Amino acid sequence: MNDSLTIEQYIKRQSETIERELRRIIPLDWNIPPKLKESMRYSLEAGGKRMRPILVLAAVEALGGSVEAAMPAACAVEMIHTYSLIHDDLPAMDNDDFRRGKPTNHKVFGEAMAILAGDGLLTHAFHTALQSYRKQGIPAERMLSIIEELAAFAGIAGMVGGQAADILGEQGVTTLKELEYIHLHKTGDLIVCSLRIGGHAALASDEQLEALQQFGRNIGLAFQIQDDILDIVGDEAKLGKKTNADGQANKVTFPYFIGLEASRDKVAELTAKGKQAIQDGNFPNPERLLRLADYLMGREY
Amino acid sequence: MNDSLTIEQYIKRQSETIERELRRIIPLDWNIPPKLKESMRYSLEAGGKRMRPILVLAAVEALGGSVEAAMPAACAVEMIHTYSLIHDDLPAMDNDDFRRGKPTNHKVFGEAMAILAGDGLLTHAFHTALQSYRKQGIPAERMLSIIEELAAFAGIAGMVGGQAADILGEQGVTTLKELEYIHLHKTGDLIVCSLRIGGHAALASDEQLEALQQFGRNIGLAFQIQDDILDIVGDEAKLGKKTNADGQANKVTFPYFIGLEASRDKVAELTAKGKQAIQDGNFPNPERLLRLADYLMGREY
Repeated sequence: MNDSLTIEQYIKRQSETIERELRRIIPLDWNIPPKLKESMRYSLEAGGKRMRPILVLAAVEALGGSVEAAMPAACAVEMIHTYSLIHDDLPAMDNDDFRRGKPTNHKVFGEAMAILAGDGLLTHAFHTALQSYRKQGIPAERMLSIIEELAAFAGIAGMVGGQAADILGEQGVTTLKELEYIHLHKTGDLIVCSLRIGGHAALASDEQLEALQQFGRNIGLAFQIQDDILDIVGDEAKLGKKTNADGQANKVTFPYFIGLEASRDKVAELTAKGKQAIQDGNFPNPERLLRLADYLMGREY
Repeated sequence: MNDSLTIEQYIKRQSETIERELRRIIPLDWNIPPKLKESMRYSLEAGGKRMRPILVLAAVEALGGSVEAAMPAACAVEMIHTYSLIHDDLPAMDNDDFRRGKPTNHKVFGEAMAILAGDGLLTHAFHTALQSYRKQGIPAERMLSIIEELAAFAGIAGMVGGQAADILGEQGVTTLKELEYIHLHKTGDLIVCSLRIGGHAALASDEQLEALQQFGRNIGLAFQIQDDILDIVGDEAKLGKKTNADGQANKVTFPYFIGLEASRDKVAELTAKGKQAIQDGNFPNPERLLRLADYLMGREY
């Protein structure tokens, strides 16, 4: 690790390493219909902040573990994030034509292939994560915990549950409580998952896992509220999609309920709370995680 | 095990046990949107032969292992099978209104919820399988192999790949080679997977796993050709769906390429070959598996 890097340089370097890994994630010697492969790679290599795998690796660094050993598990989280975007964009769901400035998966490959690309990425994420054990020697029990975190936080009481609540919310009244459920699960759970997975890969204690969870819970919600804020005030070009899209679709957001200023205060408060959990924990090398939290709060896109 | 049961009685008893487990598969204390839960349970409890989990458990019995320990993994295979049916039935895919005589998932819950129910079942399958380790004490390394088999055979070079090839085939010319790829992966892989998972759960040797794979590969293809045959000659009521549906959609089948009689011979030949692999292997208790193969070949629905 090179501590002289600015946080922006660090994020750039980490995301380049992750991009490189993601390009190799589909085994060359596997017999896969080319169109399916193309469709998965289209979305997997479409850019994005790679925040989730960066958080996995930052948690590993905070604990002084092996970044290399955790890399397959980190890629698995990004694959799950990518599948969720492909399915979310489908006509039956959010019906989005663009994502990160490019046509969405189903616009390019058709709905059937987009559904299968999502299914494929989700399933292959579990196979990819396992390489942290098969190739990198993470202990079997820790590997099983990583699989369990993925299945739980990305699953029916996690990300899928959050997405279902979001879809159902659009069909009726949404309360602040329901909005919190959606934020907590649709976005927050995979962020918490990333941090806990990094923890397991670096052999974290239960107390350290709990601190990582607290950190993730708080910055995850802050991240989502920041997204809501940027959706109102953000710059179209930077976001790569139309701003105020949620408002147009009558989708409720945090600023809708508590106003823009209180939402900004909430982001700062949650970020501070998240950082405190790490500072109070026993982490040999917490700096990067703490700076990431500040960076995420201050981002403009 | 009660060896005095006929194979029909055995199947009935096993499938009742599996049905009971499946009804408890979604944890009561998990916070899940009720509609999502309802949608998953609708398809999971819609009946079916439960052939895949029965094969998992029969492989365990053939090796003298613990059926109870393998049960969570067996349910996981059925959950993956169920998710694949929900997604296959979607308008963008096969666009089916009925499945097993009941309206398909998206006809009842809408497309968005059907996509999410499938995603949820797939993700939760991995969590469910893990209970063979957490609650039943299967060794960690074997549990990781079970996860790996699920992710590989249900994944991009397995079931999802087969489904993609099927969808792409409908859009163009299909050769016998492509049809074999589709059969091998869309249906066959999850059957092979079931047998290998049963093997791992019962601590099979590499040779035993290979024999189970050969058995699965052959009866899996036989099963699919038998389905093609029944689709032409079968009775609508027994199948719970319109017969000759594939023919109507100009979908190529084995009988289409080689004729009905040669297809029947092929089913018998594959079944014999599959049984031989088990008979040549070193299985303490192979009877049930062998009788299951005969039963599947002779079935009329």
